Amino acid sequence: MKSALGFLVAAKRCEIHGLEQLEVTCGLVKGVSELVHMLQKERGASNVFLASRGSRFADKRSEQVAATEAVEIQVRDLFDRLATDSARMAGGMRLFSRIAYVLHALNALPALREQIEGLHLGPEQATHSFSELIAGLLAVVFEAADTAVDPAISRALVSLFNFMQGKELAGQERAVGAAALAAGRFEAGEQQRMLHLIEAQERCFQLFIEFADPTLRTIWRNAQVAPEIAELERMRRIATTTPAGRPVDDTSQRWFDCATARIDVMRQVEDCATNALLQLCENTLAAARTELAEHAALLDTLEAAGGPDVLPPAALSALVERAGVTAPAGAPAAPEALHAADGLGPQLGRSVFELMQDQAQRLQTMSDELNTVRAALNERKVVERAKGLLMASRGLSEEEAYKLLRQTAMNQNRRLVEVAEATLALADVLRSE
Amino acid sequence: MKSALGFLVAAKRCEIHGLEQLEVTCGLVKGVSELVHMLQKERGASNVFLASRGSRFADKRSEQVAATEAVEIQVRDLFDRLATDSARMAGGMRLFSRIAYVLHALNALPALREQIEGLHLGPEQATHSFSELIAGLLAVVFEAADTAVDPAISRALVSLFNFMQGKELAGQERAVGAAALAAGRFEAGEQQRMLHLIEAQERCFQLFIEFADPTLRTIWRNAQVAPEIAELERMRRIATTTPAGRPVDDTSQRWFDCATARIDVMRQVEDCATNALLQLCENTLAAARTELAEHAALLDTLEAAGGPDVLPPAALSALVERAGVTAPAGAPAAPEALHAADGLGPQLGRSVFELMQDQAQRLQTMSDELNTVRAALNERKVVERAKGLLMASRGLSEEEAYKLLRQTAMNQNRRLVEVAEATLALADVLRSE
Repeated sequence: MKSALGFLVAAKRCEIHGLEQLEVTCGLVKGVSELVHMLQKERGASNVFLASRGSRFADKRSEQVAATEAVEIQVRDLFDRLATDSARMAGGMRLFSRIAYVLHALNALPALREQIEGLHLGPEQATHSFSELIAGLLAVVFEAADTAVDPAISRALVSLFNFMQGKELAGQERAVGAAALAAGRFEAGEQQRMLHLIEAQERCFQLFIEFADPTLRTIWRNAQVAPEIAELERMRRIATTTPAGRPVDDTSQRWFDCATARIDVMRQVEDCATNALLQLCENTLAAARTELAEHAALLDTLEAAGGPDVLPPAALSALVERAGVTAPAGAPAAPEALHAADGLGPQLGRSVFELMQDQAQRLQTMSDELNTVRAALNERKVVERAKGLLMASRGLSEEEAYKLLRQTAMNQNRRLVEVAEATLALADVLRSE
Repeated sequence: MKSALGFLVAAKRCEIHGLEQLEVTCGLVKGVSELVHMLQKERGASNVFLASRGSRFADKRSEQVAATEAVEIQVRDLFDRLATDSARMAGGMRLFSRIAYVLHALNALPALREQIEGLHLGPEQATHSFSELIAGLLAVVFEAADTAVDPAISRALVSLFNFMQGKELAGQERAVGAAALAAGRFEAGEQQRMLHLIEAQERCFQLFIEFADPTLRTIWRNAQVAPEIAELERMRRIATTTPAGRPVDDTSQRWFDCATARIDVMRQVEDCATNALLQLCENTLAAARTELAEHAALLDTLEAAGGPDVLPPAALSALVERAGVTAPAGAPAAPEALHAADGLGPQLGRSVFELMQDQAQRLQTMSDELNTVRAALNERKVVERAKGLLMASRGLSEEEAYKLLRQTAMNQNRRLVEVAEATLALADVLRSE
């Protein structure tokens, strides 16, 4: 029969198992971030290739295709290993479903490339297909963040997800800006899209900063001093403030170079972030394993001392109070006297009791922190779904839907997520209109 | 290399594994509900035994001790099996920690019984110890509800948890009322406690009804017609409206009998609820296994037809749109034409696509439903913690803390949970006062 301390040890083993799965998932996230970067580069090269009717970037594009394919093989391998090693992982249901979608989309890539090769697609169509595949890969990262069981790792994943999302929006901004500058003017729709992409990036990087650890924040802030970023800001201003349709100089090459320099900086920060994430997993696991060893050693000592469950009955009250659902938040520690009479001597008796108290406190803290992080993810889900609902029911574009939500929030002096929730609550009304 | 459909199958396997663990947990919950019932009866008998200085219920009490011990052995066995079969279960960290507390408290029971036997304790002290052990057991049920991965089972667990909590409060009400009636008067504090226990029961049964399935609701409503329940209501009215301290007739025996009849009715409903819960687990698992078999059969067919990932590239766009984080809520189904050109013929190609769509839709629905159920659990956690904070920082009793929160909510026309959240946000201020 397992003792109380035996169950504390079992709880620790569960925690370690969850962390091991999380480490595998984070390794996958690193691979996914590399594949996304490759696809973003291939999208950019394909864009130039198609826009120039095949006269530019033919070699660059086929080199990039080979590079993407190499990373794709690695990521497929990571997917397979996840399915083998973590076949029973918590949250696997959602994560594996996302992966199924991604695989389906990856399988369609060769045909997409053939169409690009043969110039059978416009740049917008090609961009759209790549962007949707990338969105599917980002959804895998989102799911990984949503199922993380450790608050610090969950924070790091939320931070990384927002960073990757921001980087993807930066890539889309580069494409829209380059096309408009090459055409010599920004139409009203393109300007609106630029404004939306810029603002959406701001939000993503804001959330990245909010959840990132201080080192990463500093790396990110320091990276903002690159001269290309200042130059990009000037071109952004021209792009968004010149009256719609009025001719602008064709600075598309310079725009592309500056935007690319900015994205390359992002890639470096992303690399730091994924490495820090894996390091965090490793450290958290090592700490948990050390604690497990300590628990197990204590269990051995207690068993040698005549059985591990020999705390005096007076401890009952204080113990159950901590465990109970109505336990007060600041329950006082058990008095020293509690352990004076037990067979173990005060030292060991106190140790078991303290272990339980520490554990209860730690679980409470972890649960609070996870709730905070998940709230951020949940707000994102709610806003995205409200946008989707408005797009489907009112025929709005994504930008228009977002603008409507934000404007309503400002008018009513409410938070964006509150307006989104209210919108979803009206789903039936909106759908039946 | 696993195909997209292969990952859908893996997702289904994960789901089934989660359901299998949930089935074991629900079996444990059933055992816990039996043990709680035994402890409630032992608490009642011990109370009478102690209040009569050993002259009443001596035999009844020792019979009940034996009955409790028999169930305790079963529950300890269920704990052990859980630790063996589900050593790596999701949420095991929290559940096992709760079990550790319960075991510690159970180990102290023999000493508690010795003190009762020797009349070394007052009835209040004995009641308090039993109540805290029961609170620890209820915390196990709460944790089981909080970690459930299936919305329907999660609803059933939330419903059952609230029912068990309500039944426990009914047991406490029986004890308070019996003691006061035997003493011939209700002091102001006892009246306040009675009012609190009655109101808290109402809330619990309200939540039970909200989350219970219709059959259980009907069973519960029909059970309310017992004549003892009407009689109890009359005695409740006398208990709570007679001016504090004024003599009342000693109807303690009748009160005890009526309250016991009501609790026995509850036990029958609880029995129905736990059986329905296990049945629900079984049905959900059977349905998931059937679906898995269908997926697996489709996978075999596709592999025989030349590989499972042969959907036409045109499906890419629609597929990734469904998977993407920015997917609109009401994305339209893929047109029939999508599958006309693939090697499988329209039927099989359509099947895989539909599987993915169904899965995405189902995950979304499950996630929404789970969020709704967990919100109810979370509100409970927040209110309990705010109460605990007020108790610790202001030296209030549980009733006073609850009353303060409720009064504030009414004055400010806000929801109870909002006031509780605001209270927790002020935690540092309250603690430093």
